[in-house]
Amino acid sequence: MVERAEDAAGRSGGRGEGMAADIAEQADGYARLLADGIGPIAKVANRIAESQPRFVLFTARGTSDHAALYAAYLTEIRLGIPTGLASPSAITLYGARPDLRGALVVGVSQSGGSPDLVEVMNVARQVGADTLAVTNNPASPLAAAAELHIDVLAGRERAVAATKTYTAELLALLLLVEGIRAGDGGLDPVVRAELDRLPGLAQSVLADTTASQLAARYRFADRLVTTGRGYAYPTARETALKLMETSYLSALAFSGADLLHGPLAMTDPDVPVLAVVGGGPGGAAMREVLGRLSERRADLLVVGPADAESAPPGAARVPTPRVDERLAALLDILPLQQLALALALARGEDPDAPRGLRKVTETL
Amino acid sequence: MVERAEDAAGRSGGRGEGMAADIAEQADGYARLLADGIGPIAKVANRIAESQPRFVLFTARGTSDHAALYAAYLTEIRLGIPTGLASPSAITLYGARPDLRGALVVGVSQSGGSPDLVEVMNVARQVGADTLAVTNNPASPLAAAAELHIDVLAGRERAVAATKTYTAELLALLLLVEGIRAGDGGLDPVVRAELDRLPGLAQSVLADTTASQLAARYRFADRLVTTGRGYAYPTARETALKLMETSYLSALAFSGADLLHGPLAMTDPDVPVLAVVGGGPGGAAMREVLGRLSERRADLLVVGPADAESAPPGAARVPTPRVDERLAALLDILPLQQLALALALARGEDPDAPRGLRKVTETL
Repeated sequence: MVERAEDAAGRSGGRGEGMAADIAEQADGYARLLADGIGPIAKVANRIAESQPRFVLFTARGTSDHAALYAAYLTEIRLGIPTGLASPSAITLYGARPDLRGALVVGVSQSGGSPDLVEVMNVARQVGADTLAVTNNPASPLAAAAELHIDVLAGRERAVAATKTYTAELLALLLLVEGIRAGDGGLDPVVRAELDRLPGLAQSVLADTTASQLAARYRFADRLVTTGRGYAYPTARETALKLMETSYLSALAFSGADLLHGPLAMTDPDVPVLAVVGGGPGGAAMREVLGRLSERRADLLVVGPADAESAPPGAARVPTPRVDERLAALLDILPLQQLALALALARGEDPDAPRGLRKVTETL
Repeated sequence: MVERAEDAAGRSGGRGEGMAADIAEQADGYARLLADGIGPIAKVANRIAESQPRFVLFTARGTSDHAALYAAYLTEIRLGIPTGLASPSAITLYGARPDLRGALVVGVSQSGGSPDLVEVMNVARQVGADTLAVTNNPASPLAAAAELHIDVLAGRERAVAATKTYTAELLALLLLVEGIRAGDGGLDPVVRAELDRLPGLAQSVLADTTASQLAARYRFADRLVTTGRGYAYPTARETALKLMETSYLSALAFSGADLLHGPLAMTDPDVPVLAVVGGGPGGAAMREVLGRLSERRADLLVVGPADAESAPPGAARVPTPRVDERLAALLDILPLQQLALALALARGEDPDAPRGLRKVTETL
């Protein structure tokens, strides 16, 4: 990683070089969390396993909300604990004081600086919840407000659009949930073996230029649909947000099921669709969705293992490794970040500093 | 209401006449629920109040998901019970079996026919949850799967795009929550007085043609953003879905807070924004959002009480009555449904039978 001169705003010199550097670091980020993060996360996991939460509420905004959504699936599926994604506004705007005794409230935020999440955390503690902050800044107000903290160890993010902090949140939350599942016995050997392969797999995915080359295909698109089911749905949502933030497309994300409930009407050959199709139950459930999209002659790009699902003839493909769908969420987003970067550059935009955005968004 | 000859699919003869009739019936729908629905709903509310659920999980898809989101706000704010919106896929695709003892699981579906919601309800009963179905069809599989059922009494919906079943779900869920809050003492007199005004207010909103006339403004738009906070956020989401289903726009809904976290970059004078701005805390929290949109010279339409929030100069307005924001959700959607209908007709589409859609969507 070459260090570059930075302007007053802390951005690197070349257009998009900050985002490119952030994206490129993600395999190292995984390796770092697996080496240095796993111990502290296991301690937090043990504390939570002992308190046996009755339910888990996640609270987050923007990109971190997609990491929280991923963690909500993990919590229900791997731990059998019911979960919800809490809207801060019920508490911050309307003064809701839900009875959270026995609950775990998890705030996810790369900066740890959103005042509304800090307020949710403070209220959650007052009303009896256990609280955990997952951030990239141990000195942040959110980390201070929560009893427990997990540092995702991603290092400073150069671009405004979050990439490496997103994947670091995903892996930290996966390690947390698998740690809670394992109790103090350490991770399941099968899970551990999968995780050990992750940095190498991420490196190989990042080295593939297929997605960047596909950016030309969307040069003149002004709207787009992303879709996926189960563990792939957060990937679809995060892809849509990245494309909106960096290339100013109107990118709509739907779970494959919700797409069939109305928005399908909107798709036609002029609205490109990016489908994230994993090699497990979520991917299998996309078969009907791909079929219906194909009937409507949608322009399709399918991201996922090449053998996972027969993409309709004519669909573009970005192949990613066949791994458990839990892990796929940590790999499939990588080429889609590269696509967002390449598309922004192709359009002459600066993805390091999108118009109208700030790194810490202070909503109340 | 004039009865018309119907084709084999049960649609009325003229383009959009089914949707127009459905929309027009909503004041009567409110009156009917307040007369005939309120007693049965109070019985269900008493049953739930006695069992004192520790948390409430809503499960729904499409339009009904927006009614569930509204009910989730109500449950947290008015009852102080933590809630979540459960994704069916964790259970139906990945076999999650969360520990739902002490939980109430509420399935919301106009048809009551979605197999995935039925499966969630069956699993919820097996793992110890109390279960409630809120549907427009007491003979539906979802109603049969749940222990408790609320009929929203909306009558048969003519158009594929849901309108009157949505608002009937909203009012039924409001009556449920206020009933639980009241215990068996009957509704709070202030709430009851507000509800008594609802059908008349709905009638006056429906008689206003401002929104329909504004359709011309969006004749050539192919994308659009809707936004609102708190109780107005479900209205923003439902508006976006209605525009996608009937007029095939790419309509993106964001909570005002999330809009500032990234998608704001996408807004400019060429992407129209519809903001739902109530006369309470949710509306007040939109002030910063409106300011930021104005800085970006966004094309704005503001829906809500004329005195609620100073819309930026040049913004178009659809005035709706000043009522508690809980009630506003039942009124502000009405002109937005009319806008969707008028826009579809202006574009030569048939909103009664959008391309590619089916009334009951059978996702697994």
